[in-house]
Amino acid sequence: MITSKDNPKIKRIAALISSAKKRREEGVFLLEGTRLCAEALREDVEVLEVFYTASVFKNDSELTQKLCKISAFFEEVSDTVFAKMSDTQSPQGILLTARFKGEVKAPLSGRFIAFERVQDPSNLGAASRTAEALGFSGIILSGESADPYSPKSLRASMGALLRLPVIVTKDFLKTINEYKANGFTVSGTVVDSTATPISTVNFGENEIAIIGNEASGMTEKARAVCDRLVTIPMAGRAESLNAGVAAAIVMWEMCR
Amino acid sequence: MITSKDNPKIKRIAALISSAKKRREEGVFLLEGTRLCAEALREDVEVLEVFYTASVFKNDSELTQKLCKISAFFEEVSDTVFAKMSDTQSPQGILLTARFKGEVKAPLSGRFIAFERVQDPSNLGAASRTAEALGFSGIILSGESADPYSPKSLRASMGALLRLPVIVTKDFLKTINEYKANGFTVSGTVVDSTATPISTVNFGENEIAIIGNEASGMTEKARAVCDRLVTIPMAGRAESLNAGVAAAIVMWEMCR
Repeated sequence: MITSKDNPKIKRIAALISSAKKRREEGVFLLEGTRLCAEALREDVEVLEVFYTASVFKNDSELTQKLCKISAFFEEVSDTVFAKMSDTQSPQGILLTARFKGEVKAPLSGRFIAFERVQDPSNLGAASRTAEALGFSGIILSGESADPYSPKSLRASMGALLRLPVIVTKDFLKTINEYKANGFTVSGTVVDSTATPISTVNFGENEIAIIGNEASGMTEKARAVCDRLVTIPMAGRAESLNAGVAAAIVMWEMCR
Repeated sequence: MITSKDNPKIKRIAALISSAKKRREEGVFLLEGTRLCAEALREDVEVLEVFYTASVFKNDSELTQKLCKISAFFEEVSDTVFAKMSDTQSPQGILLTARFKGEVKAPLSGRFIAFERVQDPSNLGAASRTAEALGFSGIILSGESADPYSPKSLRASMGALLRLPVIVTKDFLKTINEYKANGFTVSGTVVDSTATPISTVNFGENEIAIIGNEASGMTEKARAVCDRLVTIPMAGRAESLNAGVAAAIVMWEMCR
């Protein structure tokens, strides 16, 4: 049992949780909490390490034992040590590291939601959960967006990001143009009362909708590649919608 | 300048941030961060105390000085002390307490979104931001729901919870029945493929839609008072949508 916060393993996990760069270097991602860790059993996840507290081992013994069985390394840690590793305010007491196998291949048909520089990992996670629920083919992310494999994104996605094809592209416009060349229609979502109200658009079979940055929206260059600019009409004093909510309404209209 | 975490004022603020009971006893709510604190200037908010760090006073001097001018008490605190008070992981260095004046009166017409035992303050905040943006008349909350005036709710609402009528009711079913008696039609949102797909419903002018608890959905008793049960059809392996997202799609359909 690990009881020291200064244990090198614990320091490494804490660093992996907070740093996308470190996760990329090691080629791993992390799942924390009973719900997400249970997803690792359902999905094709190669579990490397499992860390758990005594109370999780007692209360969720089946889950903990199954995970330990398929992992290369497992260890009990004290509550204090777990709190040090965790990035949640009320840690559930179980987390695992798993091998990142690269992105899931996306089909070249159907509906995609694309994010240009979305910053909040929770928005990204929530949107991917919605995308999966509505049967979308995948998610396209500009390279400057939040890391889809961060603990926060994965948690908000309820595991959807483990299953849904996610295309992370350093050249966002090039990727969008490639889809266009393959017959996709591209809609840009803007806060602009002169744009087309989204409920009046007739969406086709192969469609991409772009959601921009939470504060500044889509770039001019991204607007320029769009076949149409659409908007969610708003009343009242709200200046904008949450990016996860805007994405949900747009996706809903795309497949309505 | 306050530099000790053990300062009684600091201890009190930290307690107010974490405890709905303490906030109710004092009759106050808190706004944290430059964006929300700026809302206090735009809205009719009676600011009681302002706490800020040296860097906020330097970088957002206009905002800080305006707030200090209208508040009964203000004080600079060290970064360490601010981090102790704050409930965010990356504190912006400004927060205020304000007098809670009771709920805003809601009109007896239009569209309402009702939450039965919703647990996550961020879902509640996001949904109220959507409700305001879509021109809803108000929000109805069962007494067991998350506190709409918690720092997390207010932050996720981007201030919408300061402006939108919020009806918190200890007897949720009685309140819903009162609205029914006043001519409202009530829809319950369920995850059930035999319920009416929401896109086929013809919503009227005076409508309430109920969203249930994130894990267990609506209670049987609440379902029983509904005029109709509606559902958001789902594909793929997702078992449900995020409550804030489900609320957004339902609200969108209600005023589409």
